[in-house]
Amino acid sequence: MADGATPKCVTRRTFVNLVGRAGGSGAVYSTMLAMGLLPTPAAYAGPPMLAPGSGKGRRVVILGAGIAGMTAAYELSKAGYSCVLLEARERPGGRCWTLRGGSKVEETDSTQSVTWERGLESYFNVGPARIPHHHKALLGYCKQFAIPLQIIVNDNRNALVHDAAAFGGHPVRLRQAAGDIRGQLAELLAKALNQGALDQTLSGLDKEQLLAFVRSYGQLRKDFAYKGSAHAGYVEPLGAGLDAGKLNEPLALKQMLGSSFWTETTDFGSEYDQSATMLQPVGGMDRIASAFARRLIGKIRYRAVVTQIRRLRENQARVVYRSHGTNRDQALEADCVLVTIPLKVLRDIESDYSPRHKTAIAAGDYMPAGKVAFQANRRFWEEDEQIYGGISWTTQDITQIWYPAVGFHGAKGIVVGGYIWSTEIGDKFARMAPAERVEMALRQGEKLHPNYRSDVERGIAVSWAKMPHSAGAWCEWSEAAK
Amino acid sequence: MADGATPKCVTRRTFVNLVGRAGGSGAVYSTMLAMGLLPTPAAYAGPPMLAPGSGKGRRVVILGAGIAGMTAAYELSKAGYSCVLLEARERPGGRCWTLRGGSKVEETDSTQSVTWERGLESYFNVGPARIPHHHKALLGYCKQFAIPLQIIVNDNRNALVHDAAAFGGHPVRLRQAAGDIRGQLAELLAKALNQGALDQTLSGLDKEQLLAFVRSYGQLRKDFAYKGSAHAGYVEPLGAGLDAGKLNEPLALKQMLGSSFWTETTDFGSEYDQSATMLQPVGGMDRIASAFARRLIGKIRYRAVVTQIRRLRENQARVVYRSHGTNRDQALEADCVLVTIPLKVLRDIESDYSPRHKTAIAAGDYMPAGKVAFQANRRFWEEDEQIYGGISWTTQDITQIWYPAVGFHGAKGIVVGGYIWSTEIGDKFARMAPAERVEMALRQGEKLHPNYRSDVERGIAVSWAKMPHSAGAWCEWSEAAK
Repeated sequence: MADGATPKCVTRRTFVNLVGRAGGSGAVYSTMLAMGLLPTPAAYAGPPMLAPGSGKGRRVVILGAGIAGMTAAYELSKAGYSCVLLEARERPGGRCWTLRGGSKVEETDSTQSVTWERGLESYFNVGPARIPHHHKALLGYCKQFAIPLQIIVNDNRNALVHDAAAFGGHPVRLRQAAGDIRGQLAELLAKALNQGALDQTLSGLDKEQLLAFVRSYGQLRKDFAYKGSAHAGYVEPLGAGLDAGKLNEPLALKQMLGSSFWTETTDFGSEYDQSATMLQPVGGMDRIASAFARRLIGKIRYRAVVTQIRRLRENQARVVYRSHGTNRDQALEADCVLVTIPLKVLRDIESDYSPRHKTAIAAGDYMPAGKVAFQANRRFWEEDEQIYGGISWTTQDITQIWYPAVGFHGAKGIVVGGYIWSTEIGDKFARMAPAERVEMALRQGEKLHPNYRSDVERGIAVSWAKMPHSAGAWCEWSEAAK
Repeated sequence: MADGATPKCVTRRTFVNLVGRAGGSGAVYSTMLAMGLLPTPAAYAGPPMLAPGSGKGRRVVILGAGIAGMTAAYELSKAGYSCVLLEARERPGGRCWTLRGGSKVEETDSTQSVTWERGLESYFNVGPARIPHHHKALLGYCKQFAIPLQIIVNDNRNALVHDAAAFGGHPVRLRQAAGDIRGQLAELLAKALNQGALDQTLSGLDKEQLLAFVRSYGQLRKDFAYKGSAHAGYVEPLGAGLDAGKLNEPLALKQMLGSSFWTETTDFGSEYDQSATMLQPVGGMDRIASAFARRLIGKIRYRAVVTQIRRLRENQARVVYRSHGTNRDQALEADCVLVTIPLKVLRDIESDYSPRHKTAIAAGDYMPAGKVAFQANRRFWEEDEQIYGGISWTTQDITQIWYPAVGFHGAKGIVVGGYIWSTEIGDKFARMAPAERVEMALRQGEKLHPNYRSDVERGIAVSWAKMPHSAGAWCEWSEAAK
């Protein structure tokens, strides 16, 4: 978004991109390079650094006190820039938001009050809820700010997969689906190898070695037949000790071929950004937002809604905003404006961006993601099913049920009763009143857990599409828009 | 082991087996049935219960205050039996043992002192270190005793796999090995399908659906070629944001076919008893032993080494033991003796077991398992490699390196520098002096982490084969012995 015709700005996405590459202060060095505020070094191989005092009091106004805006403010302030953050909400963090007993959810046309019992482990991350190993920048700040992290299980093989159109609508264990798919594909490959079908194309592989490998991969019998496996699990109850257990009968591959649902659910734990180890801050994702905000006291103006972004003259800009409860516009002038407001909100703010930039700002679609959460009055997933954390999947609209990775064996717990991230379902979800969303989550949750309706209570349902100052969860660029 | 000719006893393994089936008090109900102390009910479908007071003061002597012995004592005491536990060590728990700064390791011919810094997260589980979801009995006691549990990552896809005989001896990421194996096997299967090789044997599967499924499974390209995948990962450094990243070049399958090492390491996280979610007690596995022992105060006689087990008369037995520091034998008479001593130790205790039982007791082989642990003076696995918990694998004798699932981003941490569970390597390990084992672990660890030797210190190496009162880690039954 930065060029000669507009105030020198980088978008949130670009900033996050840069943060992702270098992390910490290095990120801002790269950002400053991209914004033309620092000369590009001819050859620089050491860790990027923003020299203390290099900002020389230059004024930066940052729009939005989410993680991107606060990261920028934190690093720029350390380098001597004079930063002001304008935040429309009364809290920092943006989509990095955690609900607890006493929280309020205010959508454009409804208000919900969270009445859950209070406790360290009684929270719900409405936005992001897990951090993969390669988000080095965010993890770097967690380390720097000493934010305690713990493991979150993403891929619990004892969780459930429920396809309304397969296996009579009965949920199966994730381990069984994953193990049976693997075993049956291995059986087919062994069959082809034993038929000599691939003899011409093995490109140097030793066929006997390969067959042994495939047998081990799929846990096939000596005759290369697949008849269930330890991967796929046992008929319960299985004892410890001398009893080898009875293997589950394989699930028919035929019933799983009809939909990508089965590969999506069973591949999930192998994906680069979803595979173990996944982490979360102890006590809620907003611990990260709070840690930044504590380091920016006096710099963030809350409940300040931006109404205009104007170029004043070369390398100068003015931002107009309105504070909550006043009818009075206030203006701030700056050498630099850093915009981290979602494009879908930015497009409704008066500005003198060039037509080309306005087209770009208008082009991104925002995902109407949504989540539902309940307080469970007993930990039925542990007591009845030996499910400790992780995610169950369903083809129904709620898509997922998340079990908490904390508070094992406790009296209660917060269950995520739905996480929706498709445009079609998300739009439908946004149009429903919160009570209807909760009722839908109860009805659909019962297909996985028969006593769900009596085991959970005090449902909260949040649609990011209906959230003021967000208007969606994240930007999706269509091929055309790119 | 219980029959008319000997005191009524069940082995530890049988007891654990029963515990595993029913859990908690139900386990002891089953045990009592097996021991003939309770009448077998004609038809009983409810949760098994040992009625309070049903023990009527009958005297039970339990040999060994490990988890099995303490479980029995706990349940039997609740039911009114009069229990005494004889424990050769000065601590409860047996193989459920955790080292911390200040601990001592006394093998038959060496003594080591643990000098690590103290802290909740500075510990090393020398014996078991993780609990799978289906160990319902143990998890039931963790719940009943309110022992805080947390997640331990077993299968971290960002950990390393090192085969001295493949890829020039360079470690690769677990995700890459797993993803590339999967992708290349899928490519071969797609090739066979596209050749029509399996047309006669698809038994009702739709070939087009199957091809699409296989493509998704292996993350193959449109032409069904495998050229790397998100499963297998990216060339680092990968940024967040708009850059899709460059996929790793696939590892040659040919180099992996030569050894079962590659399937063992990449299948590990799919195994029934090793797949997520795996749990551990906060602060060390011995929290479980301590919780039992606190409930058995006054019932456990520590440093009491059993020297004789004799049948006195029908349904009566006598146990002779010697207390530490005395030359005096003491005797206990009981209606029932429960033996949870390892068979390899039991076989050297004077007894009047029948010849048939003595043969059985002598038949089990004990695994000479061993572990090494270090205090790291920085968390190099996180700082240098973005490895958060989990296990790296190597074909070298140390077999595994474990990274702690706690204390993320802290200053230090305890690394398990080797875990050996093969008879051949374990025997060799047992014969080495502790300092030699530590040196071996350093030398081999350097193959995975180049700065290992300077990053870790204060190594401790424990061989269960050299541990008095254990003489091995667990019993392995040869086919002949069964």
